[in-house]
Amino acid sequence: MSQAKRILVGQSGGPTSAINASLAGVIAGAREKGAHAIGMRYGIQGFLDGRTVDLDQAVPDDDALSLLRDTPASWLGSCRFKLPEPEADPEFFASALERIDAAGVSAVLYIGGNDSMDTIAKLARYGAQVGSDVRFVGVPKTIDNDLVGTDHTPGYGSAARFVATAVAEVARDADVYDLKSVTFVEIMGRDAGWLAGSACLASPDVVLLPEVPLDEDTLMAKVEALLAEKNTVMVATSEGVRDASGRLIAERTVAAGTGTDEFGHLAQLSGASRYLAALAKERLGCKTRAVEISTFQRCASHCASSTDLDEAFALGRLGALAALDGQTGVMCAVERTSDDPYRAELRTVGVADVANKVKPVPREWIAADGMGVTPEFVRYVRPLVAPPEQIAYEGGLPRQMPPLA
Amino acid sequence: MSQAKRILVGQSGGPTSAINASLAGVIAGAREKGAHAIGMRYGIQGFLDGRTVDLDQAVPDDDALSLLRDTPASWLGSCRFKLPEPEADPEFFASALERIDAAGVSAVLYIGGNDSMDTIAKLARYGAQVGSDVRFVGVPKTIDNDLVGTDHTPGYGSAARFVATAVAEVARDADVYDLKSVTFVEIMGRDAGWLAGSACLASPDVVLLPEVPLDEDTLMAKVEALLAEKNTVMVATSEGVRDASGRLIAERTVAAGTGTDEFGHLAQLSGASRYLAALAKERLGCKTRAVEISTFQRCASHCASSTDLDEAFALGRLGALAALDGQTGVMCAVERTSDDPYRAELRTVGVADVANKVKPVPREWIAADGMGVTPEFVRYVRPLVAPPEQIAYEGGLPRQMPPLA
Repeated sequence: MSQAKRILVGQSGGPTSAINASLAGVIAGAREKGAHAIGMRYGIQGFLDGRTVDLDQAVPDDDALSLLRDTPASWLGSCRFKLPEPEADPEFFASALERIDAAGVSAVLYIGGNDSMDTIAKLARYGAQVGSDVRFVGVPKTIDNDLVGTDHTPGYGSAARFVATAVAEVARDADVYDLKSVTFVEIMGRDAGWLAGSACLASPDVVLLPEVPLDEDTLMAKVEALLAEKNTVMVATSEGVRDASGRLIAERTVAAGTGTDEFGHLAQLSGASRYLAALAKERLGCKTRAVEISTFQRCASHCASSTDLDEAFALGRLGALAALDGQTGVMCAVERTSDDPYRAELRTVGVADVANKVKPVPREWIAADGMGVTPEFVRYVRPLVAPPEQIAYEGGLPRQMPPLA
Repeated sequence: MSQAKRILVGQSGGPTSAINASLAGVIAGAREKGAHAIGMRYGIQGFLDGRTVDLDQAVPDDDALSLLRDTPASWLGSCRFKLPEPEADPEFFASALERIDAAGVSAVLYIGGNDSMDTIAKLARYGAQVGSDVRFVGVPKTIDNDLVGTDHTPGYGSAARFVATAVAEVARDADVYDLKSVTFVEIMGRDAGWLAGSACLASPDVVLLPEVPLDEDTLMAKVEALLAEKNTVMVATSEGVRDASGRLIAERTVAAGTGTDEFGHLAQLSGASRYLAALAKERLGCKTRAVEISTFQRCASHCASSTDLDEAFALGRLGALAALDGQTGVMCAVERTSDDPYRAELRTVGVADVANKVKPVPREWIAADGMGVTPEFVRYVRPLVAPPEQIAYEGGLPRQMPPLA
């Protein structure tokens, strides 16, 4: 009589509102197949230090699974740990595989972004080289939405939903006095403008993405023209906005000596919006404001997208089923088949084709002047920000899964 | 046959998530009595410039009234305008009353905070002196919750709900890596700690209020002791935290030269959390983070408290009814009769007793060491943050009343 299978699951990289939904999906998929799920504490790094958690015990029933789905951040803990190349350091991989074998698992699932898919790709490559039976499957996650091979990534829709909601609300807040003002709302995304672009749902006047070099004079002229027509100008500003030389606008503030604290450290200023607000004040002489959406865009579970949570869960479940079905070296992905009504199919793609690539916003989805997005972008992002269907509250706040000990 | 009465309503001071609910309540109260409502554009200042809006037309039906209730910020527009003393500048008041009479209104309702109640108190005083029949009634509004004469103020519950929700979510986000870290979440409230204290619902490790002078060494010792027991320490930090000399902690950053931008202007940094994060990094050598809740705490209608919106509406309605019933020189207020189950009665109080006073958090609701709040504070704030009952969505985002032209 064969023993029930065991699978190992970990979370890696920056937290999101949807990464625990994928974890819940992995656990649910394993249970469907009568398999047991074991969690890595603090990703592959914690696992290699011997830190695991029995998810049969920690997530005992459907209530716990549902609560886990709605809880932000990486419940298992996360790490940022780049694996060496298998060819350069086979001892590392031999030792890792030994630990995986010792855990008695037949599959490893890793939920994360680009680096995590790199981890899965390397483990799968090494496993194939040494003829290991262990399956390696990646489940995507990143608010940056910059992974190739999938229409979008879990975490993006919820972040986009908070960004658009926040920009719409700040726009009203900015418009109460009878005076001219410009508000720069700063949005995450160092290299890709997917998240800044999602502000389009709130119809800001200007959207600045990292994909198109910013010319300050052109921006100021555009804002000045807008101010001639209306009181309040809203500029959705990616933190990754760059000038023609590729230099971050954010660094200008820092270089000007405002980025160091009184201990002489480089302060962790998100500088693009502050710099542009200062510039607009100097050039246009009106009230300006810089508002950073900060951490909230990646952890605001109270504003999560139901599409996002549903897909994150379904991709985690698909990962468990695919791994238990023998697939390896793959990432779970979304293939969109229709914008409106939104329809998508889930599938697996080769993870080696995904790792270490970045998907920018296509130029044709960005306005000709580089300071907005096109209706194609709006059609793309709209179905990904569906409102939450049901939130469980406790003491007035959204319920959360209690932290792991 | 007597003509239908007309009332004039304005909004003033900083916007909140609930101030439009009070406006909706005023309009509803007027309609109940068969009266017409006229709105001041941009508060008393805009009104004195002749700017009004016919609210029968602008808010034609119950659907519009409901949408207005759920829309953040001051829909009529706001101003910051301190009236002179009636005794010092009777000409100003004579001219204002002339305008009010010319508008054919029998009552003026003003929704706002301390300065707005001062406006109502002065108008009522002058009106009584000259024997005017016009009634003057204030409807309270401030996220700061620092008005006397009322258990709490509309706007506070929704702001508190966002603050507590955000602190709970950021706490999860901060806790994903296996390392020691301290996060300072900065919360509005220059002089009173009501809003910072509301973070207690998310159980942060430390709460810093303006009411108790901060001793940095004591704080650092407390944080160090906490870090010995756990990875992640959360400090809810009021922007108004001061040292023993009464100087804002926020100013320390500015004084250190990090508060000016490259144009030499004083940058609008909210500095308390940044300064304390820098200090903790220097003293304790761990990862630190400063997260500002920023504008979101006062405009996040998507996270509004249903208690708050219901009471804001009811107070606005009461204001209209009281004014049409002949009351003047009063502010609508909440009198709490029970914490759990929460019960409150609405009434009017003399506005002269309210204006220009400030209600701090009572010392006995603050922990003995000054770095937290007591269970009394929790019992006070808990019923004010009830989750929204129903949110109307459009394209995935909360629906908003379109801006006035």
